[in-house]
Amino acid sequence: MDHAIRILGIDPGLRRTGWGVIETIGNRLSFVSSGTVTSDNRRDLADRLRQLHDGLKEVIDRHDPDETAVELTFVNKDAGATLKLGQARGVAMLVPALYGLNVCEYAPNLVKKTVVGTGHAEKEQIRTMVKVLMPKATFNSDDAADALAIAICHAQHRNVPAARLRQAGALPS
Amino acid sequence: MDHAIRILGIDPGLRRTGWGVIETIGNRLSFVSSGTVTSDNRRDLADRLRQLHDGLKEVIDRHDPDETAVELTFVNKDAGATLKLGQARGVAMLVPALYGLNVCEYAPNLVKKTVVGTGHAEKEQIRTMVKVLMPKATFNSDDAADALAIAICHAQHRNVPAARLRQAGALPS
Repeated sequence: MDHAIRILGIDPGLRRTGWGVIETIGNRLSFVSSGTVTSDNRRDLADRLRQLHDGLKEVIDRHDPDETAVELTFVNKDAGATLKLGQARGVAMLVPALYGLNVCEYAPNLVKKTVVGTGHAEKEQIRTMVKVLMPKATFNSDDAADALAIAICHAQHRNVPAARLRQAGALPS
Repeated sequence: MDHAIRILGIDPGLRRTGWGVIETIGNRLSFVSSGTVTSDNRRDLADRLRQLHDGLKEVIDRHDPDETAVELTFVNKDAGATLKLGQARGVAMLVPALYGLNVCEYAPNLVKKTVVGTGHAEKEQIRTMVKVLMPKATFNSDDAADALAIAICHAQHRNVPAARLRQAGALPS
């Protein structure tokens, strides 16, 4: 019998970091939980990063995932926005690593292609398809839905050799 | 009598994060220690961020700073490089925040202006002036020298109201 693998997907952002936990047994996917960790933009940056850290730590403590996946994305035209995203992403990848968890990165195109079937899907289509793939899924933000999509992407690709994904441009080189 | 304040300056980078600890009593500066935390680029990103986290944690445990300062910088032309820097910077700001330390941010121009006297100084000039200001200072990398310069900048500006620095463009708005 296949063993259930619990996957945490994270969609990092300084203001809102979405998270989604799913379970996969063989080809079956099931929804566990999802949510959004927010930081207070009236606080100092370091304090906001601490809020993201604390929120993600709570998620991992509560849901005890086996593997983690994060989207690989940046804002090409705005260095300030990319720096902010990078800072949130650094914390989002650090927290699972502190638990000894593997953190896989996936390009946004692969996440969309896996969930919707095309690399250029809208937020709306992602939400719809997450519900189709896991009817019991609930999410309180687009970021939480995206995080579930990232977790689904990892569930589909976790047994594909990294070298093959890297060749296809779906992983960072 | 004035109380000695111990300042940790951090120059974040994914491959090499420089750090420098100084003490300030009134207008006097004195060197405590400096060094470089490195991450292994053959490891996964999450694991490299954990290496930076562990190294900075060790520095704080050993030197017990009262305040922390980090440079505010990004690579304007290269979103990928800015994302990498942001990730390292997120961890560099998170670690002191987890100890309840304040983390101040300073624009590179202000750091250079404070230490060298002009906003467009070369690495060489920064190294020279750090030695002039603190003859006992030693550093094993440009990043460690930059981190000491950031700590010196904070020592000079820590009592200037943030609103005034923000107006002068030396702090993030």
